[in-house]
Amino acid sequence: MSRSSRIAALACAGALAALAPAAQAGADKALEAKFDGMIDPAEMGGWLKTMAAEPNQVGGAHDKANAEMTLAQFKAWGWDAKIETFWVLYPTPKEVALELMAGAGAPFQATLTERPVPGDESSSRTKDELPAYVAYQGDGDVTAPLVYVNYGMPADYDALERLGVSVKGKIVVTRYGGGWRGLKPKLAQEHGAVGCIIYSDPHDDGYAVDDVYPDGAARPPQGFQRGSVADMTTFPGDPTTPGYGSTKDAKRLTREESPVVLKIPVLPISYGDAQVFLKALDGPVAPSSFRGALPITYHVGGGEGAKAHLKVVSDWSLKPAYDVIATLKGQNPNEWIVRGNHRDGWVFGASDPLSGHVAMMGEAKALGALYKSGWKPKRTIVYASWDAEEPMLLGSTEWAETHAAELKAKAVAYINSDGNGRGFLGVGGSHAFQHFVNEVAADVTDPQTGVSVATRARARILVTAEEEPGNARAVAQAKAVADPKSDLPIQALGSGSDYSAFLQNLGLASFNVGFGGEGSSGGVYHSAYDTYEHHSRFVDPGHAYAGALAKLSGRMVMRLADADLPVQRYGDFADTVSGYLDEVKKLADTTAEKASARARLLAAGDYKLADDPTISRADPEPLAASPKLDFAPMDVAVAKLKVAAKTFDMALADKGGSLSPAQKGKLDAALLPLEQRLLRDKGLPFRPWYKNMIYAPGRFTGYGAKTLPGIREAIEERRFDDATAYIGLTAEALTDYAAGLDAATAVMNGG
Amino acid sequence: MSRSSRIAALACAGALAALAPAAQAGADKALEAKFDGMIDPAEMGGWLKTMAAEPNQVGGAHDKANAEMTLAQFKAWGWDAKIETFWVLYPTPKEVALELMAGAGAPFQATLTERPVPGDESSSRTKDELPAYVAYQGDGDVTAPLVYVNYGMPADYDALERLGVSVKGKIVVTRYGGGWRGLKPKLAQEHGAVGCIIYSDPHDDGYAVDDVYPDGAARPPQGFQRGSVADMTTFPGDPTTPGYGSTKDAKRLTREESPVVLKIPVLPISYGDAQVFLKALDGPVAPSSFRGALPITYHVGGGEGAKAHLKVVSDWSLKPAYDVIATLKGQNPNEWIVRGNHRDGWVFGASDPLSGHVAMMGEAKALGALYKSGWKPKRTIVYASWDAEEPMLLGSTEWAETHAAELKAKAVAYINSDGNGRGFLGVGGSHAFQHFVNEVAADVTDPQTGVSVATRARARILVTAEEEPGNARAVAQAKAVADPKSDLPIQALGSGSDYSAFLQNLGLASFNVGFGGEGSSGGVYHSAYDTYEHHSRFVDPGHAYAGALAKLSGRMVMRLADADLPVQRYGDFADTVSGYLDEVKKLADTTAEKASARARLLAAGDYKLADDPTISRADPEPLAASPKLDFAPMDVAVAKLKVAAKTFDMALADKGGSLSPAQKGKLDAALLPLEQRLLRDKGLPFRPWYKNMIYAPGRFTGYGAKTLPGIREAIEERRFDDATAYIGLTAEALTDYAAGLDAATAVMNGG
Repeated sequence: MSRSSRIAALACAGALAALAPAAQAGADKALEAKFDGMIDPAEMGGWLKTMAAEPNQVGGAHDKANAEMTLAQFKAWGWDAKIETFWVLYPTPKEVALELMAGAGAPFQATLTERPVPGDESSSRTKDELPAYVAYQGDGDVTAPLVYVNYGMPADYDALERLGVSVKGKIVVTRYGGGWRGLKPKLAQEHGAVGCIIYSDPHDDGYAVDDVYPDGAARPPQGFQRGSVADMTTFPGDPTTPGYGSTKDAKRLTREESPVVLKIPVLPISYGDAQVFLKALDGPVAPSSFRGALPITYHVGGGEGAKAHLKVVSDWSLKPAYDVIATLKGQNPNEWIVRGNHRDGWVFGASDPLSGHVAMMGEAKALGALYKSGWKPKRTIVYASWDAEEPMLLGSTEWAETHAAELKAKAVAYINSDGNGRGFLGVGGSHAFQHFVNEVAADVTDPQTGVSVATRARARILVTAEEEPGNARAVAQAKAVADPKSDLPIQALGSGSDYSAFLQNLGLASFNVGFGGEGSSGGVYHSAYDTYEHHSRFVDPGHAYAGALAKLSGRMVMRLADADLPVQRYGDFADTVSGYLDEVKKLADTTAEKASARARLLAAGDYKLADDPTISRADPEPLAASPKLDFAPMDVAVAKLKVAAKTFDMALADKGGSLSPAQKGKLDAALLPLEQRLLRDKGLPFRPWYKNMIYAPGRFTGYGAKTLPGIREAIEERRFDDATAYIGLTAEALTDYAAGLDAATAVMNGG
Repeated sequence: MSRSSRIAALACAGALAALAPAAQAGADKALEAKFDGMIDPAEMGGWLKTMAAEPNQVGGAHDKANAEMTLAQFKAWGWDAKIETFWVLYPTPKEVALELMAGAGAPFQATLTERPVPGDESSSRTKDELPAYVAYQGDGDVTAPLVYVNYGMPADYDALERLGVSVKGKIVVTRYGGGWRGLKPKLAQEHGAVGCIIYSDPHDDGYAVDDVYPDGAARPPQGFQRGSVADMTTFPGDPTTPGYGSTKDAKRLTREESPVVLKIPVLPISYGDAQVFLKALDGPVAPSSFRGALPITYHVGGGEGAKAHLKVVSDWSLKPAYDVIATLKGQNPNEWIVRGNHRDGWVFGASDPLSGHVAMMGEAKALGALYKSGWKPKRTIVYASWDAEEPMLLGSTEWAETHAAELKAKAVAYINSDGNGRGFLGVGGSHAFQHFVNEVAADVTDPQTGVSVATRARARILVTAEEEPGNARAVAQAKAVADPKSDLPIQALGSGSDYSAFLQNLGLASFNVGFGGEGSSGGVYHSAYDTYEHHSRFVDPGHAYAGALAKLSGRMVMRLADADLPVQRYGDFADTVSGYLDEVKKLADTTAEKASARARLLAAGDYKLADDPTISRADPEPLAASPKLDFAPMDVAVAKLKVAAKTFDMALADKGGSLSPAQKGKLDAALLPLEQRLLRDKGLPFRPWYKNMIYAPGRFTGYGAKTLPGIREAIEERRFDDATAYIGLTAEALTDYAAGLDAATAVMNGG
């Protein structure tokens, strides 16, 4: 599901920092060489071709066939495998219609289907293909004037308000980008809109970025982006079983009761169609931030001139979601390394998700072979082929919720991947494992250049900063990694793929790994053109990066499964959190400054003076003045965390090698639940499901992460009482974490 | 000619700073009230309609008629007026042709004319209208493959070189923007191109920014931008008489000898036509910085696939340029205040230049009436209606060169304007007069908001910074003017209008003043749609800003003409130059860092690692390592300047009121030639005509100013020996200037 811009991450390693507990923690080089020898990109390509041969959305025949094939393969490779089925509310379209009723170009009927393209045989297999549709919209049959709301984010509504344009009773037209898909209709609904159309502007993934498919990789005029619009920022998973598994007999909310199902109808459309609707709009010329790459003057509408009819009727019955769960039992079956990738797609799903899924299968086959040949990992390995990720992380979330207690007791880490392509390594996840990830990345070779994937990622950061000297973030990143001995940072995780329940609800150490950033594979994202043909031509020719992903995540699994001593380096986590604290303090300052600057400008009448009087614009709203926030609890907690982390890291470096097996066991037991101390039962404001005080998807970014979210979002949204409350709660979590670390250190000191 | 983005400048004044020599220097409020009472926007609108009724380019019948009408008016208003005629090399098109010969869409004949639009009667008067043409291109008849070079600036050629695409033997297609028009074919020629096509991308002034004319103000698909492509950065004026007047019998270079006339044919085209040529291009997909708003994937070409035929034949005979020069004799006829605006346009020229010209006429009528009623200014006032500005500042430059000695002896200041429209005051010029300009701007009312034009300009700076918090330049500007008692900065002048010869060749204090920045008048710039209709609807309805410009520049003229004591505040100049010195020092540092960063990245092979290997790109060229530059001579000179300026300003504040008439006369005489001390005979590298060591148009920006140009451009272009030489030369000029100030101070001290 995730459409990652994986600019991020990864490692050089090279020389290890002085504190590293043991060179290449957990690595058995001979074992890894054998493993690498069994990774066969061509075989992965074959699986990809088979699995992407038919539409494989949730509830479809081919989705089930793929589950069964995956199950059979795992079994054949020596895994203890089974299918766990959940019954989930997953709507499917019965009727979709959109037409322009009034305005220049009316009447016009939107296409809502994606015709086959020459040279792509898959795209002609339109049987079972979903039309234009987004899951968990609200159904409806409305006729209303149109308003163009740009990305449909809060700042866009502010701009429209200043222009005197309301969406109340209107159908909004919004474009993809600028924030997660589902926020667009949610915010439209909150502003009183009666319907929502989302289109893919060619500026973002169409002709403006590359030749369009089939000439190039970019989105053709008739392509559109399906997806989920469930309110993921409140909770993911089945909308009717919040916080618990949607097993066959689970007690459920009704659809109407569920806070994450929308009430208004929504449809995605192509830019070929969108141009007709946008061209029909009247009203003011759109502000410059609203302008895309269509050959028109963008207007915001708002009058009665352009009117559309939008109708969506869905089948709201429960559908089965088939998770394939496979296990290789370790010496200690009470410690699990969990690895997953989803299997369901919106249509053929070649890039998203099967390119990652076949890499995972490659790992599984090789691990199974090693196991058969006598390798017995210290810990149990659990591989999961998730279903129903696309609607809203259903397969993984329902499984995690169902097995929450066992996972909290046993899972050391969860390693996720999703769509994968050629380019640069990106890793997001739990920062205590940053150095570990860097070590792994230093040992995997980039298929295109022959250097390590870490070296390549570092080169990109450095060159980006040189080419974009005005990009302050790029320059700062480059500065931080200029020393080739430094570790590359891993990113914080928000949402958008199956790690969410593990990290944010259960508090397990989690990672999302993958390659990408080359070509323009985004142009077929969630369309009927995300096919084997497109993927093999543009995204990962020869499936070389499926191989690289298998080598990377396979190594992570093997090293975590076999590690004799902890691979964590808690100083990295402490430093990262300390950096986040600096950020939110600065945010508090700029938030306060912004309110006073606005008050000054309003008092002076400067907004009106700075405006073109022929464009009537209202003054912006005054901003609530900021109190001086007291960050002392966080200062104290972070200081404690730093001391605890440093003490632990030094103790591990000093004494790790001389620990007794019993001590090692106690140390593992002490650390396994440590990340769970970052959870607070109360969760985040408006969304108690999200319990992690360090990492969350943003309420107004969606996939994009917010770190120290309770504090940061409260400041951003000017909920200053919440900010104070979450300074306390986050400090409490970090203090708790530091105490857990101290306890682990005590184990090493003979405690 | 200038297409100003007048975001800049102006003043609040309000309370005067302690050092100000006299409240409202030179201001006679009663006189100014009478003057204001005679400013009649409706009358200006009438003149505009008459003068823009027919095409009025150089040599055209209506240009001559406008000269004669202007002469007659000045005479009727009581001025001593005459026409000075120069004979200039000004080519006119005999034949223009452009066709696509090969590639998708071929054959296709470019339109090269601008058809009338409904509702604009002027646009139907196509008799005498120039077709698509740029003056001083090289003529020729070539057939060659096409290469798209984006803005055609040095960085674009670097990008093409990395892609392995050469323009040698090709016709380049380039878009307006990113640097001055004439640099595009000049650089194309230097890179071996045989022809050049320049088009207006809709991203910059077409449908992307506003509805297109006649629905809105923006450029319609068939509109194109004429202009001059003489190498203005080497010298302006008649290409065959560098540095002296092109009087009837002047000795001349041949066209072939002139270094500022191009050797290759060049044509401007519309974006309607450009789309066909760009769509035909093959080769790599263009880098993202190359992409405009046409609904195509931009390719760079470079193969043999797309081929064009370009033909231009011109009449290279001499044409007459009619400057109307009018004088009101002052009490001291040896001190002149000179004011000018050009009169010639590319077609009807309503906005550019007549909107400024009619404001100047309004001033002249009012000043004439005051003069008739007995007002006798202390100094002589000279008004100039320039011809032949559009081809390359010919009318003003030839006049300035012809009368150089007298101007150097007598001219106190030159005040220029050009096209004018509604919006915000912008002033560029000599910084010793910054406070004076702020005082004037505080006394002129903005027609749309009723506050002073200074207050409105300040509001815009403050609001821009709030709305664009990531815009470091805007934020810095806002910080500098946050105190309402602070003066607003005036901008440094580059080129693009008639002040150039006065400021940069003669070293006179000069100003360029005007209003703009609202609406999207740029969309008809230099096209046949810059008509009375367009101007009156979109650019300056009711000609209100023509009135405001007349009140502003009329005040500047009257106050300078009548000032009893100098209006200058040299501390402002010293502070400004000190800021420029800080900038060039920082530039030297970043230039050195860039070279070493590039060397590091090249040595590590990082460019290749950071690239997508499927796009073959060569490494960038290594950069010459920077020596450590010795700025000591500048440090010393600026320190001296600061002391001299402060001493002068304090002396004037302390003793100005008690000076004898003889002392005042000596003081005026000491200050009048002071700005000329900023000139050095040697001029700037490659262009000795530009003698001002503080202000110049950039060699690679054109209109855009470079301050401390000898030093700054040498560092930018890595001519480090030149940098050292011009640190010396610029320091010498400033030292000389400081000595002149000291001498003026001595006059006040009884010297």
